[in-house]
Amino acid sequence: MKWSQYFIPTIKEVPAGTEAASHRLLLRAGLVHMLTSGVYSYLPLGLRVLGKISEIIRKEMNAAGAHELLMPALQPLDVWQKTGRDKTLAEVMIQFNTKRGTAMCLGPTHEEIITDLVKAFVHSYRQLPVTLYQIQTKFRDETRPRFGVVRACEFIMKDAYSFDTSMAGLQKNYDAMFQAYKNIFARCGLDPVIAEADSGAMGGRVSHEFLVPAPIGEDKVKAADGTEQQCIEVGHIFQLGTKYSEALGALYVDEQGKQHPLIMGCYGIGVSRLLATIIEVHHDEKGIVWPLAVAPFSVEILPLQTTDPQVMSLAQSYYDELTKSGIDVLMDDRDESAGFKFNDADLVGIPLRIVIGKRSLAQGAVEIRSRSCAASETVACENVLARIKSLMSQ
Amino acid sequence: MKWSQYFIPTIKEVPAGTEAASHRLLLRAGLVHMLTSGVYSYLPLGLRVLGKISEIIRKEMNAAGAHELLMPALQPLDVWQKTGRDKTLAEVMIQFNTKRGTAMCLGPTHEEIITDLVKAFVHSYRQLPVTLYQIQTKFRDETRPRFGVVRACEFIMKDAYSFDTSMAGLQKNYDAMFQAYKNIFARCGLDPVIAEADSGAMGGRVSHEFLVPAPIGEDKVKAADGTEQQCIEVGHIFQLGTKYSEALGALYVDEQGKQHPLIMGCYGIGVSRLLATIIEVHHDEKGIVWPLAVAPFSVEILPLQTTDPQVMSLAQSYYDELTKSGIDVLMDDRDESAGFKFNDADLVGIPLRIVIGKRSLAQGAVEIRSRSCAASETVACENVLARIKSLMSQ
Repeated sequence: MKWSQYFIPTIKEVPAGTEAASHRLLLRAGLVHMLTSGVYSYLPLGLRVLGKISEIIRKEMNAAGAHELLMPALQPLDVWQKTGRDKTLAEVMIQFNTKRGTAMCLGPTHEEIITDLVKAFVHSYRQLPVTLYQIQTKFRDETRPRFGVVRACEFIMKDAYSFDTSMAGLQKNYDAMFQAYKNIFARCGLDPVIAEADSGAMGGRVSHEFLVPAPIGEDKVKAADGTEQQCIEVGHIFQLGTKYSEALGALYVDEQGKQHPLIMGCYGIGVSRLLATIIEVHHDEKGIVWPLAVAPFSVEILPLQTTDPQVMSLAQSYYDELTKSGIDVLMDDRDESAGFKFNDADLVGIPLRIVIGKRSLAQGAVEIRSRSCAASETVACENVLARIKSLMSQ
Repeated sequence: MKWSQYFIPTIKEVPAGTEAASHRLLLRAGLVHMLTSGVYSYLPLGLRVLGKISEIIRKEMNAAGAHELLMPALQPLDVWQKTGRDKTLAEVMIQFNTKRGTAMCLGPTHEEIITDLVKAFVHSYRQLPVTLYQIQTKFRDETRPRFGVVRACEFIMKDAYSFDTSMAGLQKNYDAMFQAYKNIFARCGLDPVIAEADSGAMGGRVSHEFLVPAPIGEDKVKAADGTEQQCIEVGHIFQLGTKYSEALGALYVDEQGKQHPLIMGCYGIGVSRLLATIIEVHHDEKGIVWPLAVAPFSVEILPLQTTDPQVMSLAQSYYDELTKSGIDVLMDDRDESAGFKFNDADLVGIPLRIVIGKRSLAQGAVEIRSRSCAASETVACENVLARIKSLMSQ
């Protein structure tokens, strides 16, 4: 992608009313735009990161044997009345009546809806176990939205639901998801603390939270030395048992023809919250420092003199070759000063940078710089692609 | 994917209250599930088709120079009040107040929101033209939802918006989108009639509709012989002009430093509606006949005797080889009768089928069948992969 033809509206000034570093950087690097309190648009660069995070999640969910579907946000309230959560979640649930007078809500989570769906299709032990998941937009009437997309009114979740015939089966699915969660967060460059947790409004007994230490965290864990540490909850998994299947009558027949309620687990990850959490952990005073796996682009090509044909032709040839190799490249082809472009490059945080300047080009060399360490290296023009590929595989 | 481990809940009976062939087949082939009137879940097979359609759209939009972003469904009503469409669209718009008392709505379209967004970032002719698009979920308070996902209350749209400094620029962007639309529909196996249309509540003058002839269509065009033909509207593009930019104050300065309102176009495709339209056009009395480009899987492997080690080992080797070649394969490994599996295969409509039976295997051969023509061919076991690849490239 060429920067001059793209849409990366970076902002120089620190936006007002932003307490969190990630919130400031999401706005300043042109990743999100606030429509109203707690409601955000994802601009092209932000959407690319959400796409990378989502693909990591999909791969790990599929590897764990879960199947992706997509459930609606618009839901009839009567399904929620069967578990009583129309009342227990009333404070955060957006409820309204259609013009035909049907009481509806926007789903803040999907336990009731998935149970209703599985009830329609799964009737026998022979169809079990099954785990289904979605990456989908959820809604909460948040009276105090905070920290940008960390606590928002509209947000993207990955929610998975497992259905089993025995507690041993549930434990097996729970363990598989537990491991998938560890893989997902590690691939996103995060190292969460895993804590046994209260099941709260979800029901069930066993539950684990995945907590990333960060100053804006609203959850707390006892650090090793006994002090409390602020954390952002990025994932939460629950052994639900039969709370939802009993309330909604989701039953299966066993080998003896006897009916039992399905045994459920549910597994959530805050996808849009991860976007902010990764920045909260990976940034410095100049901007974002993306881990390679979730970076919107892997390499930024930065030609310093955009009117110099030799500089631009080399930049273009790297651009073409890297693109052909399937590497995501951003080229800052704007006719701006070197300082201006370096500042934007630091802000936006692409992991690897190829700087092409007249002076070093006269020596047949360009500069390669990694965003995560201050050091740079001078590389002969003809070795650049090999060096980039080697750096990317580290 | 192995059918026995997947989630394809096919239905033998014709579901009640389904007037449209596509609606019946979406339900019977296990692609969607109705939560409530006009609101559907996309089951794994249906979501795969939505994914294929979305990727075709993304490729054509990106090739036309548009950039993807994602705007929220939750919107403050005051933005809509600036154009008066809170009133003109009131009949279909879901409106409610948050607990803090803010008047909100769920977006049935995004002209106001994108204009508000672009206004925040684009101020100069040097930043123009720009075209932005999203694939996003929209909401309508539909009093008479019909034909499954054709006219639904929650649906997926691709909506693009172009911003220009001149009518000539708008025309150029409009022409590029016009061509992209023709490409998209052709790749989805559709051949729409293109008609000049009324701009209606959108505003602006020039507008074209993309209409696919189908018995359940709610739009009409004069066929060549002067008779009327029922059509489904799958796309609609508009030259909006300055209606939205003037109302919302989205201005740019020209080379002389003079301010003008941005000149806009908007371009919509009903993504979930396309899912139904493709089936409406591509089915027979036995089930769906997917065009290859949008099929949930390209090849179905159908071993007839699942307890025969030789049959299953050959099936598994084809499965592994095709998967390794990047081809989407579904293997019906269920221990069911041949007739049962053939019926499901016809219903689900995977384009190419490899039937492996003991009898032909004794001759060193299997059967390859295309879902779109009754004919089948006997192919020597060792030539199957080459033949499948050749059929896929036709």
